[in-house]
Amino acid sequence: MKLNNLNDLFLHELKDLYNAEHQITKALPKMMEQASSDKLRSAFEMHLEETKSQIERLEKVFDILGEKASGEKCKAMEGIIREASDMMSEDADPAVMDAALIASAQRVEHYEIAGYGTLCTFAKQLGIDGEAIGLLESILSEEKDTDMKLTQIAESSVNTKAEK
Amino acid sequence: MKLNNLNDLFLHELKDLYNAEHQITKALPKMMEQASSDKLRSAFEMHLEETKSQIERLEKVFDILGEKASGEKCKAMEGIIREASDMMSEDADPAVMDAALIASAQRVEHYEIAGYGTLCTFAKQLGIDGEAIGLLESILSEEKDTDMKLTQIAESSVNTKAEK
Repeated sequence: MKLNNLNDLFLHELKDLYNAEHQITKALPKMMEQASSDKLRSAFEMHLEETKSQIERLEKVFDILGEKASGEKCKAMEGIIREASDMMSEDADPAVMDAALIASAQRVEHYEIAGYGTLCTFAKQLGIDGEAIGLLESILSEEKDTDMKLTQIAESSVNTKAEK
Repeated sequence: MKLNNLNDLFLHELKDLYNAEHQITKALPKMMEQASSDKLRSAFEMHLEETKSQIERLEKVFDILGEKASGEKCKAMEGIIREASDMMSEDADPAVMDAALIASAQRVEHYEIAGYGTLCTFAKQLGIDGEAIGLLESILSEEKDTDMKLTQIAESSVNTKAEK
């Protein structure tokens, strides 16, 4: 890969996140299976649907830019998901597992918040098509909302149950 | 590892971040070497000193809790740093490399923001010693400040240079 300019880096980041989202669609069903809290399970389920729609939006961004949608192995997301998988194989009380699942999912969300934050900043600097910027901003906003929703589920019920 | 209650999970998370910080102290000098922007290099340098101090603060937290300071391999941070290392080995224009270094560093910061956010929430739920909570909050606050400082460096100079 040659990174001659910001546009090259923007495309590299776009491919990184496109791959990361695909990894997440495979991880979320496993996290749903492990969740005991109904609220948490349905938050994961909703985010799985959102993630599939985000992949379609990324494909639209590639299309607008005249690029073929393709991923580049996101080793960071691979590590984050590996850590989550290790956690899921631990012997844990169900409520503690829910708290652990939230902790793992928030790490996933924050990776994406950093990634899409960077992508949006690059896109504006590069003055790319407004529709593409809007699509990226809509994804960033959903990742932030998911992170906040997970905090709310943790603080309103899961952590109290896990404490006992 | 057995996760019977929130306290077990809290200690597990603490060890995860203690290991992550050690990994970061090894990665930052390499990122400093690659940086062309003086502002960026000095931001990394300052954060390296901060990270060393954060490790000491985590040791103090372990101490307050009557636990031996120890790490558990943070596979997520390993993945994030591996991705950053791959990026650093690319053939890149110096300003584009600076933008890429910031993108990688913000992924590191966001992992920590998620991790310390979780730790602080658990600590309050568990009602652990106030001094320990204060130490964890001080680290969380520094990670957020570093993330914002990196955004500022990107937007005020690096990204414009990288665009050309």
